[in-house]
Amino acid sequence: MTANAWLGTELPIIQAPMAGVQGSALAIAVSNAGGLGSLPCAMLGGAALRDEVAALKAGAQGRPFNVNFFCHQPPTPDDAREAAWREALAPYYREFGIAPPDIAQGPGRAPFGDEAAAIVEASRPAVVSFHFGLPAPALLARVKAAGAKVIASATTVDEARWLEARGVDAVIAQGAEAGGHRGIFLSEDVTTQVGTLALVPQIVRAVRLPVIAAGGIADARGVAAALALGATAAQVGSAFLLCPEATTSAVHRAALASDAARHTALTRLFTGRPARAIVNRLMRELGPLNPAAPAFPLAVAALAPLRAKAESQGSGDFSPLWCGQNASGCRAVPAAELTRGLAAV
Amino acid sequence: MTANAWLGTELPIIQAPMAGVQGSALAIAVSNAGGLGSLPCAMLGGAALRDEVAALKAGAQGRPFNVNFFCHQPPTPDDAREAAWREALAPYYREFGIAPPDIAQGPGRAPFGDEAAAIVEASRPAVVSFHFGLPAPALLARVKAAGAKVIASATTVDEARWLEARGVDAVIAQGAEAGGHRGIFLSEDVTTQVGTLALVPQIVRAVRLPVIAAGGIADARGVAAALALGATAAQVGSAFLLCPEATTSAVHRAALASDAARHTALTRLFTGRPARAIVNRLMRELGPLNPAAPAFPLAVAALAPLRAKAESQGSGDFSPLWCGQNASGCRAVPAAELTRGLAAV
Repeated sequence: MTANAWLGTELPIIQAPMAGVQGSALAIAVSNAGGLGSLPCAMLGGAALRDEVAALKAGAQGRPFNVNFFCHQPPTPDDAREAAWREALAPYYREFGIAPPDIAQGPGRAPFGDEAAAIVEASRPAVVSFHFGLPAPALLARVKAAGAKVIASATTVDEARWLEARGVDAVIAQGAEAGGHRGIFLSEDVTTQVGTLALVPQIVRAVRLPVIAAGGIADARGVAAALALGATAAQVGSAFLLCPEATTSAVHRAALASDAARHTALTRLFTGRPARAIVNRLMRELGPLNPAAPAFPLAVAALAPLRAKAESQGSGDFSPLWCGQNASGCRAVPAAELTRGLAAV
Repeated sequence: MTANAWLGTELPIIQAPMAGVQGSALAIAVSNAGGLGSLPCAMLGGAALRDEVAALKAGAQGRPFNVNFFCHQPPTPDDAREAAWREALAPYYREFGIAPPDIAQGPGRAPFGDEAAAIVEASRPAVVSFHFGLPAPALLARVKAAGAKVIASATTVDEARWLEARGVDAVIAQGAEAGGHRGIFLSEDVTTQVGTLALVPQIVRAVRLPVIAAGGIADARGVAAALALGATAAQVGSAFLLCPEATTSAVHRAALASDAARHTALTRLFTGRPARAIVNRLMRELGPLNPAAPAFPLAVAALAPLRAKAESQGSGDFSPLWCGQNASGCRAVPAAELTRGLAAV
């Protein structure tokens, strides 16, 4: 497979940014193997954000890398919804003998803002990617002025056109198979979400930009199929989750390596936004799209102590076991080996 | 693109059987163009079934063709559920000034049985395909003894293995993008349904049989991607719905040619089984998976007069506007031209 002229990488492979399960180490390994390594910054802030971006820049040794941010509107807390959510979780608090936590104590997920823009300006990544839309025009202009290519996720043809009109350099066509958060931002209706094989060629036809295919791509065959559909590159996430460079938890790794990984669903339970995860006890018992879950990212807080307690007992019953619909590519091998294998066609 | 040795056709293209929107004319055109034309037999019986199969056999002029059957268990009528369904539809009966119909007066959808087996034995199609599982072993044996290759739809890896264990000759990997009825038969949980790009390679790895890719394939790029994923052939449905040989209704054609076709959803409303259709008024107002809809195919009866009345006014508000997630390939051209275009890579 030949060098990817548009990305500036040797291979047409982007490692998907996956907040909560990886840091700079995975991104460094992928960038050094000839792909585009990505650092998820949504759960980082302050010194951690600065340090991780600096580590990636140093580790990539001049090779291209990507830093990724969320662009959600911070929600207005809704006391009634929060109460309904805690009511839904009450049986679990009792079962584990723990008190419901104070409101809004979960790990924060801040949208891209001034602090992050300053770090982009200082670190000059080759690529900056956005999920859940785009930042405000002034912030976006700072990213482009810093020399970064801007890419962003579209889950529908309408979202792809919206992104093109606002000046992105490429569109990530995120098919419904993808693990983790849907990038959906023009609708809240998950029936609008389209499978990768159907979405990519429609977006290729709808925009004049390079298109990156994402969702369900787990091996070299999947990459070849993505390129056959007209994509410039393939973005791969779940396949990297068993790599030693990922920070995937033990319960998450066990689930990924088991037959349970064959059944995933879109769920709002873990953060408030639809995201694909392996079906676990919480999803089965509450229903994966239960409307009681507060708006993103407020759903996180009330679950945090349940998750911690269950994980301390070796259980992933309350954990977001992020995974796409094709876990068959997950291998506990160094990310460099996995990256090269993805391009071996 | 080279001849398909396994199918015995010139092209690796199967025209998907689509009950209610096509008869033998479409299948004849596709078989004569070098693909595998398919006749959907689920809504045919008696003389109509015999006549349509005979017409296809004559029209295919010795070329391979496929006849398709459903394999559902006929449901036990449930008075309470039927009453709830009519209650949900009551506002529409009032709006249109029509009386609710007698129970169970919709068009029947009979599972494959003795009569159909006798027609297969007499007509000796090259391929017989099944949806919703397989017929009983004695019936299946008759089909195989008649010399037909047996193919059947799998929507999960488990279903593919189940079909392989029962002796099918190839598995159709039906990705979630596909229009019309999901072939799902080992579960009623639609969250188990996997996108084509993720499903095909997993089934290719799980079984030792040829795999046919279906779902979201609408043009030559999609066919090339399916083959890159390891499929032997691609099954294409929605793209044929605007062909003059299809019997697609006027309201259905109008919807397919409009932007509305970009938003489809899985719905149980029209027949009782999950199937993908363009989102219309009924789906929006009742919710596409409303549990009031009776078991397949009993949901059809109560809707029939509403559909007929609305269609007579030029409205598809109550019609099953079957469509996959990639209507971009729908073209009002002869099916032969469309078939050859699908293989033009």
